[in-house]
Amino acid sequence: MATASSSSSASGSRNQSSYQKVLQTNTINPHVLNVEYAVRGALSNKADEFADILAHGKAKEQGLPFDSIISANIGNPQQQPFLAQKPLTFWRQVAALTELPSLMQDEVVRSHFPRDAVERAQQILDDVGSVGAYSHSKGAAIVRKHIKEYIEERDGGHHSDAEHIYLTAGASGGVGQVMSVLISGPKDGVMIPIPQYPLYSATLSLYDATPVPYHLDAEKDWAVDVEGMARAVDEARSNGTDVRSCVIINPGNPTGSTLTLENIQGIIRLAHEKRLVLLADEVYQANIFQPKERPFHSFKKVLKDFSKSSDPAERAIADDVELVSFHSISKGVSGECGRRGGYFELCNIDPDVEAQIYKMASVNLCASLQGQVGVDLLVKPPKEGDESYPLYRDEVQAIYDTLKSRSEKMRDAFANLPGVSCGEAQGALYLFPEVSDLPQKALKDAEKKGQKIDLWYCFQLLEATGICCVPGSGFGKQPNDKTGSFWFRTTILAKETDEFVERFGRFHRELLDKWA
Amino acid sequence: MATASSSSSASGSRNQSSYQKVLQTNTINPHVLNVEYAVRGALSNKADEFADILAHGKAKEQGLPFDSIISANIGNPQQQPFLAQKPLTFWRQVAALTELPSLMQDEVVRSHFPRDAVERAQQILDDVGSVGAYSHSKGAAIVRKHIKEYIEERDGGHHSDAEHIYLTAGASGGVGQVMSVLISGPKDGVMIPIPQYPLYSATLSLYDATPVPYHLDAEKDWAVDVEGMARAVDEARSNGTDVRSCVIINPGNPTGSTLTLENIQGIIRLAHEKRLVLLADEVYQANIFQPKERPFHSFKKVLKDFSKSSDPAERAIADDVELVSFHSISKGVSGECGRRGGYFELCNIDPDVEAQIYKMASVNLCASLQGQVGVDLLVKPPKEGDESYPLYRDEVQAIYDTLKSRSEKMRDAFANLPGVSCGEAQGALYLFPEVSDLPQKALKDAEKKGQKIDLWYCFQLLEATGICCVPGSGFGKQPNDKTGSFWFRTTILAKETDEFVERFGRFHRELLDKWA
Repeated sequence: MATASSSSSASGSRNQSSYQKVLQTNTINPHVLNVEYAVRGALSNKADEFADILAHGKAKEQGLPFDSIISANIGNPQQQPFLAQKPLTFWRQVAALTELPSLMQDEVVRSHFPRDAVERAQQILDDVGSVGAYSHSKGAAIVRKHIKEYIEERDGGHHSDAEHIYLTAGASGGVGQVMSVLISGPKDGVMIPIPQYPLYSATLSLYDATPVPYHLDAEKDWAVDVEGMARAVDEARSNGTDVRSCVIINPGNPTGSTLTLENIQGIIRLAHEKRLVLLADEVYQANIFQPKERPFHSFKKVLKDFSKSSDPAERAIADDVELVSFHSISKGVSGECGRRGGYFELCNIDPDVEAQIYKMASVNLCASLQGQVGVDLLVKPPKEGDESYPLYRDEVQAIYDTLKSRSEKMRDAFANLPGVSCGEAQGALYLFPEVSDLPQKALKDAEKKGQKIDLWYCFQLLEATGICCVPGSGFGKQPNDKTGSFWFRTTILAKETDEFVERFGRFHRELLDKWA
Repeated sequence: MATASSSSSASGSRNQSSYQKVLQTNTINPHVLNVEYAVRGALSNKADEFADILAHGKAKEQGLPFDSIISANIGNPQQQPFLAQKPLTFWRQVAALTELPSLMQDEVVRSHFPRDAVERAQQILDDVGSVGAYSHSKGAAIVRKHIKEYIEERDGGHHSDAEHIYLTAGASGGVGQVMSVLISGPKDGVMIPIPQYPLYSATLSLYDATPVPYHLDAEKDWAVDVEGMARAVDEARSNGTDVRSCVIINPGNPTGSTLTLENIQGIIRLAHEKRLVLLADEVYQANIFQPKERPFHSFKKVLKDFSKSSDPAERAIADDVELVSFHSISKGVSGECGRRGGYFELCNIDPDVEAQIYKMASVNLCASLQGQVGVDLLVKPPKEGDESYPLYRDEVQAIYDTLKSRSEKMRDAFANLPGVSCGEAQGALYLFPEVSDLPQKALKDAEKKGQKIDLWYCFQLLEATGICCVPGSGFGKQPNDKTGSFWFRTTILAKETDEFVERFGRFHRELLDKWA
């Protein structure tokens, strides 16, 4: 057998000993090897390399044809210097006061803070004591109470219970916690949309469950094809997979589309018929760009609205279908990714199962307190009449307007490029354009390099422009074998939208010329 | 089959439908059912109930014979109102400034902050941009650089590399990440000390690996019995378990003891001989109460010191043995549990395996930024000459002195109780006394109630005094079958140590009388 690696990048393992390392790729958890996560992968590492070259002023020396990296691969709104969305002032005022309560004792300093920020900080501290202490494993009581109130208001008064709400490290942390309980073995199937945010496929790989793909229809604004979903369940079950759950991302990631009420009702009816636990990833619920045509409908509300049906069979759905809804502070207009805050709400879950989820939350101790503070601010923003309200309203509106106008401007630019099509910007922080009709020479070059055409295209884009996107195959949406068309995802967060559009357009046209 | 549960504590599932819930205790991940975590279990829930009664002023009505709960079950130093260790001022100043950088722009406000706090906040912000942005998946570069410098200074100059350092959500988050890569299947064995912090047994249960216990010797200050450890490896391997790793907690949790240099050397030699990856939980490295007699030796330093041996076989150990060291901001004198900050350092790990660990860190996006800020402050405190230094030094000294004197006072009090023995308070935040010679009637009452004697004792303690401790069996240290003696863990964090000692002593004596 080979001795331990001698790479100098190893954590100090440069010895020439005959000792055989215990941990090698053929001895560790094989499911880890299967995990793929394209949002931070080879492309993103290459972008980091370029950023490093730029930072050291060596762009010319190294022949880089751009002077900045545009990280359009990850929804990280406050990333500097290229995205740089400003934090909401009220959020950070409350956070600072909870960190250093003595600021509230000093009259001069306190006068720099609006009254409602001081009150909110005090209210949180009255409950948690200190942001340096563990909270209750489910999360601080005051935060869960505010979430409950938020959900009830959002969902037209349908009851929510703070005891069924769990604070998490972003939505990702919650998904991992729930999946770890939900999956009992490799025969268990979880339905994931194609295209999908790769957290889901990665988590299923890690827990060695069977992903059961269902397809979103590009021709219909990426709607869920419920009949296709039903066929996918039946087929997987006939192959011995115990399909038990279904992930829905709404608004969509990477698609940026928002599901219609009818589509959601269809999914819920199917979940009831097929006995599927619904996992609703609703982290983009505040990123809605066509509020009239495509408003956000929470799964919880649509589920509980079945209780109003005149048909008893339909009414039963409201209390039958098991639902976990995820939300996060990382997206929306707050974009506070770094705090790692989020929550999930359990609905119609067996209490004995819930006790197990609670136990696992206890082992994890608690979510970060500043993440919890963020969730409190997300679900209970300043309201009209509060001292902070005018500034808060203006900041939120400005961020929203910026996201919406960027989204539309980028969408229009994509749609005007030869061979590129792109659906309307409905929601979330992404666009997912389709590229068709690349010249044959381009396809051959990709083949020669052993790269899928979408990955090849994204590498060409990065190397020519400094723009980092993610190929569709990273979301499970493979290039079309027959036509050669493919997809990629871009965030709509680039501060310099015009610059993005200009760089991208020039790149795409030149690429068509170069490989013609 | 039974219908879904009708408990009113379920998340809304009170319907009378014949629908069979997908998730039931017999369908979910069976390994989750096996997870035990006594630090937050039945006792702690009972303590919460009592706290609720007290908070509503109903102590008399409900017949509670105490007026406050003393949460001695969990190392949560800043928990209010009963522990209430104050945060370090410098930490919170830097944290507040990173949250609200505009505080630094206002001259009047800035004058309230020491220069070095402003500088540190600015240094961190220069690197991360915003504490609301995701950092690099391993953690912010500036923080990893400071950790590297801290480790090198602590370990007598042995090289550390920031690329092998990963920021985590407390040490717990890191343990989970590493275990998920390390464990390939149910035949894999991981050695855990008995007694142990139950995070380890819980994680092994969840990942369905085989715990291989090794025993700490109560008669020898809870030292590791290296020969016994060797026998445990051999025996487990002869039974088909692939023993591949060993967890060591130093200073010990729950034991509060600190390992000697010779003991650590012996463990490392054994790890080399038996091919074991060492997982060194060193979160209490700053909680050392006998710095001369029992100083802290890091596993990394002791491992790398083998390179100085004149014996080539011993020298090889330094680069052969795979080591992961964990540290945290939750303990020490900072006690900042709520931030969820920590890190691990990889040493001698195969680079391809490390790439997998890095990938999994990417899926988790990053550790909370305020946790990372905490780690920065932990590893790079103010130094002599800095404006903050005098206050920082005084605060640290006061907390340290308080912990040490509480620890000694409590230890002496335990040692003076009839039938109770307790080792010296060497380190960590705990004492782990042994109780012997309870009256037969007490043992019988426990048996009648179906409780282990240590759990019975802790319930009696809680119900009589409001003090919440954790029975030894929660740490895998079972009561002695023959003698009936048993252990329990208490933190040394109770603000009112005299009150604790008084309540406890009275309880224990009365218990002996009552059941005599």
